[in-house]
Amino acid sequence: MTKLKLEDYHFRMQIEKGIDKVVMTLRVMILDKPGHFGKVATAIGNVGGSLGDIKLVGYGHEYNTRDITVFADNDAQFKDVLEELGKVEGVVISNIIDPVLELHRGGKIDVKSRVQVNSISTVRKIYTPGVAKVCKIIEANPELAHNYTAIHNTVGIVTNGTAILGLGDIGPVAGMPVMEGKAALFDSLVGINGVPILLRSKDPEEIIRTVAMIAPTFGAIKIEDIKAPECFEIEDRLSEMLDIPVLHDDQHGTSVMVLAALLNVSDYVGMKVKDDTIGLVGLGAAGIGIAKLLLAYGVRKLVGTDINSTARDIFSKVGGNPVPLQEIMSVSDIVIATTGKGGLIKKEMVRKGQVIFALSNPNPEITVEDARAGGASFAMDGRSANNALAFPGVFRGALNARARKINFRMKIAAAKAIKSCAPAGELLPSILDREMHTKVAEAVERTAFETGVAAPRTEELEET
Amino acid sequence: MTKLKLEDYHFRMQIEKGIDKVVMTLRVMILDKPGHFGKVATAIGNVGGSLGDIKLVGYGHEYNTRDITVFADNDAQFKDVLEELGKVEGVVISNIIDPVLELHRGGKIDVKSRVQVNSISTVRKIYTPGVAKVCKIIEANPELAHNYTAIHNTVGIVTNGTAILGLGDIGPVAGMPVMEGKAALFDSLVGINGVPILLRSKDPEEIIRTVAMIAPTFGAIKIEDIKAPECFEIEDRLSEMLDIPVLHDDQHGTSVMVLAALLNVSDYVGMKVKDDTIGLVGLGAAGIGIAKLLLAYGVRKLVGTDINSTARDIFSKVGGNPVPLQEIMSVSDIVIATTGKGGLIKKEMVRKGQVIFALSNPNPEITVEDARAGGASFAMDGRSANNALAFPGVFRGALNARARKINFRMKIAAAKAIKSCAPAGELLPSILDREMHTKVAEAVERTAFETGVAAPRTEELEET
Repeated sequence: MTKLKLEDYHFRMQIEKGIDKVVMTLRVMILDKPGHFGKVATAIGNVGGSLGDIKLVGYGHEYNTRDITVFADNDAQFKDVLEELGKVEGVVISNIIDPVLELHRGGKIDVKSRVQVNSISTVRKIYTPGVAKVCKIIEANPELAHNYTAIHNTVGIVTNGTAILGLGDIGPVAGMPVMEGKAALFDSLVGINGVPILLRSKDPEEIIRTVAMIAPTFGAIKIEDIKAPECFEIEDRLSEMLDIPVLHDDQHGTSVMVLAALLNVSDYVGMKVKDDTIGLVGLGAAGIGIAKLLLAYGVRKLVGTDINSTARDIFSKVGGNPVPLQEIMSVSDIVIATTGKGGLIKKEMVRKGQVIFALSNPNPEITVEDARAGGASFAMDGRSANNALAFPGVFRGALNARARKINFRMKIAAAKAIKSCAPAGELLPSILDREMHTKVAEAVERTAFETGVAAPRTEELEET
Repeated sequence: MTKLKLEDYHFRMQIEKGIDKVVMTLRVMILDKPGHFGKVATAIGNVGGSLGDIKLVGYGHEYNTRDITVFADNDAQFKDVLEELGKVEGVVISNIIDPVLELHRGGKIDVKSRVQVNSISTVRKIYTPGVAKVCKIIEANPELAHNYTAIHNTVGIVTNGTAILGLGDIGPVAGMPVMEGKAALFDSLVGINGVPILLRSKDPEEIIRTVAMIAPTFGAIKIEDIKAPECFEIEDRLSEMLDIPVLHDDQHGTSVMVLAALLNVSDYVGMKVKDDTIGLVGLGAAGIGIAKLLLAYGVRKLVGTDINSTARDIFSKVGGNPVPLQEIMSVSDIVIATTGKGGLIKKEMVRKGQVIFALSNPNPEITVEDARAGGASFAMDGRSANNALAFPGVFRGALNARARKINFRMKIAAAKAIKSCAPAGELLPSILDREMHTKVAEAVERTAFETGVAAPRTEELEET
């Protein structure tokens, strides 16, 4: 298998970028006379819009109705499309449908019965009186809850909405589409039940108390989009208190994905991650998570910065060395930026041969083009760095092992598994690579047993 | 449509009773020679066992393997079956499978993605970056969470496991099979997402705080199997605090079903529920729930008793009149028993013409046979009185209306809808009667608007 050139990888990303354009579906009534649809298509093309799917959705006496998907470069261009269409005789736009919103309509997850409930006999088995037997068995031997409830395939996805994506503190309800997205990925990629839990609090004590109180519901807890620095204490304390894994995805999902990419970069450009100087620009949840994992992996020269002094203190406490941005850029072999500030790093600041991961979405700290123009040997932005590469397999493996924790060795094992699944010439695999998720899960499960956070199970316990 | 006689109703219940027997599936290797299966069947029949499904699950050189479902009257008889089979030459029992446990294996619910996740383009719509648009829309207009998240089709099923079925305080995890059973019924009967939440606390303050904290996750809260008297305060205070419906099913699911049955009884035996003297034996969650609903319905003469003095005080406070059991039995036209104490009511205590609902499961306060022998004009036990008749439609209707509360008029409307769906000659419909659940939902939704706990919606809000 020949490795593709790194340029190809970048090129592929550029192609995928198209999806960030404006996509809208127009429901259009068009006079049913020869040539009229042509006028519609021409009008859209005249102002630079492109056509996607075109569906005939209604026949009328004089008019036919079509759903036309239109791609535009931006909102302004899309407005031009509407205006231009408005000028065409015999054309009425009856509706503008946003395909993204359509996918979210009604929510993205369902709780479904695994049992077909179509006879009284079934009801009497799954509900009273039959269910009493199952309750008694679990009461007598709580371990059997693993066998007879969904608890051990269920992950609570807990947020208070204070750090949703790049949007900041928008509250838990506005954050729900993200939580449901994670749950949808959990189900689709590794068959885990993801249960969003929205918390109406910003107080770490209240959050810790609440999550601990509902913890028996779950086989693991995924903390999500809770802002730094509260997220660190919340994760640490809950992890200490509970006998199930507690993982803050913004820290560790990101860090595992970054380590996987770094391991591949080191293959490509001949670096040794452990010996390199690594600079972290931005020490929020992602930055600190990356710092912890890199140190656990064996990196010794780790510098970093953040505009927030508390963040720098935390970085120092976990073992990093806070230095100014200018110094980071001049001493680091590898720079990893997670600031949320697009354009923070200028072309001139890049050191020749540097590897740069500018991960903020949607606007990276430096574009791949500028980084390369500045002399970077390799550059990646946040579009290809999705933490959904890591979390599904990590939780699947931890649940399979019935692990009490997800420790650093499990995360490193996950990163190596992800690394090994990247296609030739690329840093990371696709998040839709189901085999990759399976490999991550296996690596995590095995490492859980090796590191003693999961107990080897004896024969399945005798029941009844 | 001719009404069936009440006796037929009782007879039907007797038939369904069969399911309470011991049911087991034996995996049996049987010598593949003519006549050997006959020996197996004969051996089972010899000790009184009956045969259910028989499946051929494996062919061998000498032996075939069959799964044989066996019904026995009790555990002792099932043991006899095993012993008798052990004596048959050429027969090996390789496994004993409990079909009830099989249905519960792995849990009874799944969280499923409603979106097919099979392209990066879809991932980018349901997750980052596309999801950001949906978050921002909801942030700007929180009402739109109704449209773009599953919140408003999701009910939290909250328990601390202190009063699971008739089993008492077995803890939240051992109670999970019941919660999952409710969730399975929610999905199957009315398409609601039921999310079990297990609470590690018996302190009402902690429980109230926790549920209030996670409430943004849900469109309604169903409190389940939390013991009296804590359940009353928990329901009342949460209902006051939150702007979504909070309903304690053990109180109100039961009370709605009882009122429905009473309305039908009054048709059959010519009583007028409102003018009758009604006696409640047992004033736990179910008893108090029934008391509240009957008083709201207009019942004026309500007596009741409980061995617990706190329970009697609560009964007094809601408007009932505590009197001794003996007096209840002598003054009441209708007796409703929910004590959990099988055999509490003796045949001699029954007044001629009395209606008796002895609802404790699995052992009623008085059997239907004894009640009738004592002179009852009508008797029902708990097997046919399932609160799953009420809760699915009640919550469906409340969610459809986006109601802030489930008030008594909504519960009475639900009871009337259930009543109207009972087949001729029966008191209650089957819980598998989907049309009944739809009628209940419609009645509850309409009443929510009529009573002002739901606001009529103007046009769907404009989006983007």
